[in-house]
Amino acid sequence: MASYWEIPGGVCAAKGFKAGGVHCGFKRKNLDLAIIFSEAEASVAGVFTTNIACAAPVKLCKARVASGKAWGVIANSGNANACTMGGDEAALQMAVLAEEATNVGEAGFLVASTGVIGEELDVSKVESHIKELASLASYDCEDAARAIMTTDTYPKVLSCAFKIGGVECHIGGIAKGSGMIHPNMATLLVFVTTDAAVPPAVLQAALSEDVKDSFNMVSVDGDTSTNDSCIVFANGLAGNAPIEANTKEFAVFCEALAFVTQGLSKMLAHDGEGATKLLTVHVSGAQTKSQARTVARSIVSSNLVKAAVFGEDANWGRIMCAAGYSGEDFDVSKTSVSFASEFGKVTVALNGVHSPFSEDEAAKVLSAKQIEILFGLGQGEEQATAWGCDLTYDYVKINGEYRS
Amino acid sequence: MASYWEIPGGVCAAKGFKAGGVHCGFKRKNLDLAIIFSEAEASVAGVFTTNIACAAPVKLCKARVASGKAWGVIANSGNANACTMGGDEAALQMAVLAEEATNVGEAGFLVASTGVIGEELDVSKVESHIKELASLASYDCEDAARAIMTTDTYPKVLSCAFKIGGVECHIGGIAKGSGMIHPNMATLLVFVTTDAAVPPAVLQAALSEDVKDSFNMVSVDGDTSTNDSCIVFANGLAGNAPIEANTKEFAVFCEALAFVTQGLSKMLAHDGEGATKLLTVHVSGAQTKSQARTVARSIVSSNLVKAAVFGEDANWGRIMCAAGYSGEDFDVSKTSVSFASEFGKVTVALNGVHSPFSEDEAAKVLSAKQIEILFGLGQGEEQATAWGCDLTYDYVKINGEYRS
Repeated sequence: MASYWEIPGGVCAAKGFKAGGVHCGFKRKNLDLAIIFSEAEASVAGVFTTNIACAAPVKLCKARVASGKAWGVIANSGNANACTMGGDEAALQMAVLAEEATNVGEAGFLVASTGVIGEELDVSKVESHIKELASLASYDCEDAARAIMTTDTYPKVLSCAFKIGGVECHIGGIAKGSGMIHPNMATLLVFVTTDAAVPPAVLQAALSEDVKDSFNMVSVDGDTSTNDSCIVFANGLAGNAPIEANTKEFAVFCEALAFVTQGLSKMLAHDGEGATKLLTVHVSGAQTKSQARTVARSIVSSNLVKAAVFGEDANWGRIMCAAGYSGEDFDVSKTSVSFASEFGKVTVALNGVHSPFSEDEAAKVLSAKQIEILFGLGQGEEQATAWGCDLTYDYVKINGEYRS
Repeated sequence: MASYWEIPGGVCAAKGFKAGGVHCGFKRKNLDLAIIFSEAEASVAGVFTTNIACAAPVKLCKARVASGKAWGVIANSGNANACTMGGDEAALQMAVLAEEATNVGEAGFLVASTGVIGEELDVSKVESHIKELASLASYDCEDAARAIMTTDTYPKVLSCAFKIGGVECHIGGIAKGSGMIHPNMATLLVFVTTDAAVPPAVLQAALSEDVKDSFNMVSVDGDTSTNDSCIVFANGLAGNAPIEANTKEFAVFCEALAFVTQGLSKMLAHDGEGATKLLTVHVSGAQTKSQARTVARSIVSSNLVKAAVFGEDANWGRIMCAAGYSGEDFDVSKTSVSFASEFGKVTVALNGVHSPFSEDEAAKVLSAKQIEILFGLGQGEEQATAWGCDLTYDYVKINGEYRS
């Protein structure tokens, strides 16, 4: 039985976290500036893009997360503040403006940006709206979740409660996708808050392990962005005894964290640019966890697999092909492939070769909006899950015209 | 000045090579079975897919190329003979049928297949057409070039002549693309013939080095296929003294080989599934050749870059982003990005940041059918070129419906 239960509230589900969003002008319309902050100083942990052309706010965050403590984050959409001349200064200014507006001490804020790369970020837009933003902040995170959206079609919000030593704690997050999404952190902004007391090093250990099975298992288009940031704050206001690594309490915390991050991961894949179907790839029978993850990511990232899912075509050869070029070594003659959905399950390959199946049955399974590919390696006991989406006309349309 | 000159003839430009193509029923209509063979036993070299789920004919070719000698190749389109139960036997049967029909000795033929993965290959189709095919073979390779096509829209043929010790030699090839094309050999079948005398080990050394700057620098969709094969035959009928490695003659031969393979590479990229534009990425200023190649391949493979090229959008941030996640380490502040075409050249980024440019001028440059991205690393003297295409609605359409 799960040790957590879902609750509403998202990034404001945990005690003492406020959030807000305003329109400040980075986008032509819609909310584009978000703030999330704690009423008490919080432990902080983060995981960031591996792209060496990383954006200025990512550099600022990496430096500040190292201190282990922070109060909040200010984030904008519509401009990535990446590959910009005045980027470092602009990111720092955003942090200072947020710190002043919320009366927290120096270096108390982290910064995140998402949007077009290579355009200078005009901080005056933040300056002229920061007081309004701080005053609007409330215990409802809907506006913040909307303000970080780029081509996302809906805000992504999830939260749950769990108990640590009899004390009820809360954890929740908001996230945005939905292009440039690929394992190793995508154009992904994720902010998670908890009122559990978790020392910074323990929080970082939990997060670093967690992303291996959550955000690093999501692929929309194979492009690892310049701005990916996943930041977790833990303010301790729930009043539990601080969680130590490798304890029963740590396991409970990690399970609740995974509920939030894996749930958000699924939403990100489901809302991938132009996507009409959520694609879930389960790899089982791997010799190692790492092998399972690599094969699952290779399959979910294949343009040809994704186009076949869009076309509702049981083209399992492409799945075998994508597993085959994953870089993992395995015995092809032990593998199997099945498709599953709410309309049933159909096995299309066994022992590495075609297994007779009804095309009508396969077509029915693949007509669902949520498709599972079950890839059995047959070499061991480990498994992993990756999430993606189909490749559609609209993906091309959205990305052919993004800047315009 | 180049030491070679273009001539017609393709895979039949070299003395003593015949080719032909027939329709035998793997495809509903159109030619689908090709033969190429030499009138004298030839040295042979090959490079094959790195996909571990490689097709049966690839396994056969790898084993036979190791002997260094062969007479020809039989190839079909419409069925990949990959992930099939009777695959090894079917591939062997195809070779035997070709050997009998052309009266060459045992193990004289190589085999290649391309098409749908996972369907058993019905050898009786080959059997009932092999005599017709052998008798139709001539010194015109057009039918053979057409018979290996899958979703290609035109046959790919190129050849040139060069001199070795005063003796005129010839080299030429045919190739097919056009999906599942990605560095490390794609769904790519390439057959090259030369009448130059080149010992097997020297031929293999030339080819293995050559593909690093030709077929391994082509990407259509990031999918490395189960069937990629590039095979070169050298029958020595030109009468030159056998070419030794690391001589002036070897350099001349490699230059002529590169003319053929790089030319075919460009055609493959140009005819990528659904492509409307040929995309050439030149990376210069790299510290090593390998760094230049890696960055060029990362840019040309990016879905977001490809979609921007389709949309004629000067979105250079995506180029910087793709270079940044290539895995290569470099100083972003030294990089530059330009777009070029028959309509001019526009520099859009300098020193890693935006360089003011006219959007009208950029739009004009990007309206051409052949677009070049010039990415300057500014860290050294090495360079590399990669070829790809735009990502279009039609790519999605073609691959959503491939099996049907």
